[in-house]
Amino acid sequence: MAQELGAHMTEETECMIDRDAGRKPGSGQCSGNVKEMRAVMLSGFGGLNKLRVTKKLMPEPQRGEVKIRVKACGLNFLDLMVRQGTIDSPPKPPLVPGFECCGIVESVGENTERFEIGDRVMAFANYNAWAEVVCTPEEFVYKLPDEMSFAEAAAFALNFVAAYMMLFEVANLREGMSVLVHSAGGAVGQAVAQLCSTLPNVTVFGVASSSKHSAIRDSVTHLFDRNTDYIQEVKKISPEGIDIVLDCLCGENTGKGLSLLKPLGTYILYGASNMVTGETKSLFSFAKSWWQVEKVNPIKLYEENKVMAGFSLPNLLFKQGRSALVESVMDKLLCLYNQEKIKPVVDSLWALEEVKEAMQRIHDRGNIGKLILDVEKSPTPLMASDSTETSEAGEEEEEAEGDNDSKERMPFIH
Amino acid sequence: MAQELGAHMTEETECMIDRDAGRKPGSGQCSGNVKEMRAVMLSGFGGLNKLRVTKKLMPEPQRGEVKIRVKACGLNFLDLMVRQGTIDSPPKPPLVPGFECCGIVESVGENTERFEIGDRVMAFANYNAWAEVVCTPEEFVYKLPDEMSFAEAAAFALNFVAAYMMLFEVANLREGMSVLVHSAGGAVGQAVAQLCSTLPNVTVFGVASSSKHSAIRDSVTHLFDRNTDYIQEVKKISPEGIDIVLDCLCGENTGKGLSLLKPLGTYILYGASNMVTGETKSLFSFAKSWWQVEKVNPIKLYEENKVMAGFSLPNLLFKQGRSALVESVMDKLLCLYNQEKIKPVVDSLWALEEVKEAMQRIHDRGNIGKLILDVEKSPTPLMASDSTETSEAGEEEEEAEGDNDSKERMPFIH
Repeated sequence: MAQELGAHMTEETECMIDRDAGRKPGSGQCSGNVKEMRAVMLSGFGGLNKLRVTKKLMPEPQRGEVKIRVKACGLNFLDLMVRQGTIDSPPKPPLVPGFECCGIVESVGENTERFEIGDRVMAFANYNAWAEVVCTPEEFVYKLPDEMSFAEAAAFALNFVAAYMMLFEVANLREGMSVLVHSAGGAVGQAVAQLCSTLPNVTVFGVASSSKHSAIRDSVTHLFDRNTDYIQEVKKISPEGIDIVLDCLCGENTGKGLSLLKPLGTYILYGASNMVTGETKSLFSFAKSWWQVEKVNPIKLYEENKVMAGFSLPNLLFKQGRSALVESVMDKLLCLYNQEKIKPVVDSLWALEEVKEAMQRIHDRGNIGKLILDVEKSPTPLMASDSTETSEAGEEEEEAEGDNDSKERMPFIH
Repeated sequence: MAQELGAHMTEETECMIDRDAGRKPGSGQCSGNVKEMRAVMLSGFGGLNKLRVTKKLMPEPQRGEVKIRVKACGLNFLDLMVRQGTIDSPPKPPLVPGFECCGIVESVGENTERFEIGDRVMAFANYNAWAEVVCTPEEFVYKLPDEMSFAEAAAFALNFVAAYMMLFEVANLREGMSVLVHSAGGAVGQAVAQLCSTLPNVTVFGVASSSKHSAIRDSVTHLFDRNTDYIQEVKKISPEGIDIVLDCLCGENTGKGLSLLKPLGTYILYGASNMVTGETKSLFSFAKSWWQVEKVNPIKLYEENKVMAGFSLPNLLFKQGRSALVESVMDKLLCLYNQEKIKPVVDSLWALEEVKEAMQRIHDRGNIGKLILDVEKSPTPLMASDSTETSEAGEEEEEAEGDNDSKERMPFIH
């Protein structure tokens, strides 16, 4: 596959391109037949200093693939976990992160049928999405409605598909039910809230930092501060429990979530952001966190009539081959979008070169809705006092050891 | 509640009635105003010798209850677990077992609306169902279709409601899916197979003892011997996995069941019959088995996109107050029955006095479909060589210490 081409590029080649990059800033093409592109590169697992924008050979579509000239990419919490290496079986760095993008079809490989050059599309990619050009199998590509902007498209696919599949495929959301969502202010949380509003009389309990409350109050029925004992608050309002609990935190929240369920209710773990801490640098941290998670006895579920589920859209798409199902879900979602029943919430747009600042923002859970990497955006010049790395605990020391960050970025400013 | 009246009867009263029973076999009424009834009594947790038929004061319906003159009762594997004390928080014996019965409404308590004297009904009861008369809250009572015999009715409620709710409420069975059911020859297994056949193109994988294969071969798509490595056989036929796995065994079957699931597939534990062994006598056995069950890490479900659920209809009805939902399920099931799409499979009918033989049969997994206690049936006279207790390992010794079984039964023969 084309994606692997980039990941397996030798370090020597990469250095050569990096040297070129200084002489031809912003250029997408070298002299001769060698085509290049800008991409975000993760040099190894760890802190923000492991990320930089570099030049890479531009991929060409292989059999069954579509080549997309990228306009914007989605940044997800999962990308932060990739950077820290806190995911299961991570690929070997250096690698280009990113699981979703949107743009314009530039060419198609053999044996593709559904796309033509010039089509506006959004797409999933198994890494390599944070680049000017992405090649990905046709089965992961979807046409955009005319009304959908590229910023909206970059905020759409992963979060709305995940929210829809959890509510309607894993659980069975119906009129009159109740849903609790952690991180109600995040992109998935906002998608969940919108999808719940497409059915009559669904009660949404949201948990979010109090700083986000004024911005998202209208999107949910009841809103709780993450730092309060929201379990007790929810039980006061709904003593009989909740039908669906969506948890992206893991850890002790699994037990809490299960305890909140009504009989026949469904708890879904769709992320493990509690595994990410400022200190997490070790490659063993994933395994360590795994063992710290409280395991659940199936007999407890039997006695309590409860359902415990896990949902990972990247695994479903890239490891488990369920792209046809995801496509049918995307059809339903685009129908809801065209009916103006759902609309992605965009938090902010960032240049590729601002990926560290963007990642810091999602680490600090400062975002309301989706963070977008806008490939055509120029980075905002750094202010003298600007320092975004200090709030991610433990970064500072390593930053000092790392490359000089601004030198890397300079070629792409202006 | 009326049920508790019987359970709290003093031992002295019980002995008096037992002495009476010898003089007035089969009589439902004493002299004066004291009404009596026959009932199966469990004197303590343990072997078959803990069961006997005795006389008890007949309950009268309390507010909201319906009094049923019982024709037949369902015998379930759960009743065997009750006898052994291998359920969670069992009530204190002596008690009358039984969770379902059918018959004719004899009277109704205050504040009931839906039933009239003479109505043919089936009902759930929170214990006390194995008796000539049962009083149970109106919410657990359902009218019978004219075409449904009492034997069918006693085989219908618990198994079909459980099968339906697992397939359509907990999981989301749809056209083209695949289902694996352990104990395919049992009453739930047969109900599952029939309900799967109401949708197009559902593949049913059944596991059963080879002795049952000829009888149930037509009810499932693929049939496997319990003693073979059926996991490998299933994987050969369906390498991509199964959509729904229904497990009533627990123990190591949980891991096996989860491993067989497709992504987004659902494993449902609806019983724990592996907790029942011939040797199980200890009151601590439930707790011991609980800790021996392999617990499941929610992160594993997340990575594999799997759903693990538990389902206990008695808990749903009697502890968790979901009778309204069960009633709506019963409406759908009676509709399917009237359309002749489902029909309960009756294994055999037994007199109350034959409860030990019936329980031995379900313990040995000899039944195909449902075991029924027929309240109006006279027990078949024992043959000289008849001994059903020896095959339940470990019973013999205790039987020798126990009451003389045949003496207990004699009053009710002829």
